Amino acid sequence: MRNILLKIAYDGSAFHGWQRQPGQRTVQGVLEDALARITGAPASLEGTSRTDAGVHAKGQCATLRGDFGIPTERIPTAANNLLSDVTVLDAEEKPEDFHARFSSVGKTYTYRFAIAPYMTIFLRNYACLLAKPPNIGKMVEAAKRIEGTHDFACFQAAGGAPRETTVRTVFGISVDGFAETDSAGNAYDGILARVTGDGFLYNMVRIIAGTLADAGYGRVSPEDIERAIDSKSRAQAGPTAPPQGLCLEEVYFDRETMMERAGKTVSKII
Amino acid sequence: MRNILLKIAYDGSAFHGWQRQPGQRTVQGVLEDALARITGAPASLEGTSRTDAGVHAKGQCATLRGDFGIPTERIPTAANNLLSDVTVLDAEEKPEDFHARFSSVGKTYTYRFAIAPYMTIFLRNYACLLAKPPNIGKMVEAAKRIEGTHDFACFQAAGGAPRETTVRTVFGISVDGFAETDSAGNAYDGILARVTGDGFLYNMVRIIAGTLADAGYGRVSPEDIERAIDSKSRAQAGPTAPPQGLCLEEVYFDRETMMERAGKTVSKII
Repeated sequence: MRNILLKIAYDGSAFHGWQRQPGQRTVQGVLEDALARITGAPASLEGTSRTDAGVHAKGQCATLRGDFGIPTERIPTAANNLLSDVTVLDAEEKPEDFHARFSSVGKTYTYRFAIAPYMTIFLRNYACLLAKPPNIGKMVEAAKRIEGTHDFACFQAAGGAPRETTVRTVFGISVDGFAETDSAGNAYDGILARVTGDGFLYNMVRIIAGTLADAGYGRVSPEDIERAIDSKSRAQAGPTAPPQGLCLEEVYFDRETMMERAGKTVSKII
Repeated sequence: MRNILLKIAYDGSAFHGWQRQPGQRTVQGVLEDALARITGAPASLEGTSRTDAGVHAKGQCATLRGDFGIPTERIPTAANNLLSDVTVLDAEEKPEDFHARFSSVGKTYTYRFAIAPYMTIFLRNYACLLAKPPNIGKMVEAAKRIEGTHDFACFQAAGGAPRETTVRTVFGISVDGFAETDSAGNAYDGILARVTGDGFLYNMVRIIAGTLADAGYGRVSPEDIERAIDSKSRAQAGPTAPPQGLCLEEVYFDRETMMERAGKTVSKII
């Protein structure tokens, strides 16, 4: 039985999320159908993250198990010939006991805010609108209170899969202003939050993003955030930011790479 | 009878072009439906340009004629509340004899090339892929041979509306390299061609773009382009570049603004 790790990017705009669902266009469904066509056998993927509808990925990972003849290095090109808004970036043979979800040690998500008086057509699927510039310094301060190992129950939305514990470690959150363009070349200013952690509760990054925005507008103080975490009550944290600003940036299978991306030295955190 | 000039932007990805067609989602159709709802009367638009499926616009214009009560300045916000991938940027009351198409003196289109080894999911609807960097200097040289007043029959695709003449004036073509990001923040290099003219034949800008790319790869010389124009034969010009790289940038109702945008002084051209 072969076990192949795929690295995958997708534009989440036209997908009903990652997970295969009957009657819905999902990333897993579209990918499994393409992989079944190129391998000639039913394909079953295990993804690292079950991203929601509208959420993008630059580095989703998934394992493909099965017995089929196609050489591993040919899978990306063969699959991409059948795909449009999802791309297989890389394929790598792994040992049988490797698992996309359970072997991963953490992930980085980004959350993109566009600062503009109104949402534009070329960004509507890729960013959350901030009509007025927030105070980035205050967002950075708030982020520092979220970093670390906490019971993150206050940052968990109802409706996710049941979890054994709501304790997670956020290794690092960076908040940076940027000046970029949209895909049609229109310049805009924005803010990108990068959140790296060992695992995330349902909607956790989007609630963190909503809380950071609240902090940037002075609606909550760093102390309010500490109190929210202590309360373990969803009502104490900020709003859930919309899905289109969220992107699964990278999945890690070794801690050193993760700590480097989180901007931390391994010794400092572990 | 009121006559209102609307300035409109759209992401052409999910539209079957500008022109209303039964059973198809078109920009004109979606806009007319929204305008009918906010004015309470059937709405009929006359657009400046009938852009094709997949073509974008940052400055399409259209006139809305009718008797309705909504103040002109409220039309953009009221319409935009009902719209997603099309936006009314501006509304302006015009005299009865003003016409979006016949009163316009010219337009600027841009054509966007992305230079990358393969097309990416976040640019696939917004640029044409150039797998290898072309010689921009050669593209500029080629552009110079296309500028001016010519019979552009060689740059006309079959299938357009019948025209009285195929003589047009291209006031200016600029070709510039750029370093930008897509809407998801991925950096890429590209080339943008800006073409300003008094009118364009069917697919003319896309054929010019295809010809410029050919020139950039040394497949045609500046002299070949002169010969193609003289031949009036479609077979002598380059391929038709795909629609998604094309954007209707601006429509002009006065020559001075147009010449300024084309990078020309009025005296030099007219």
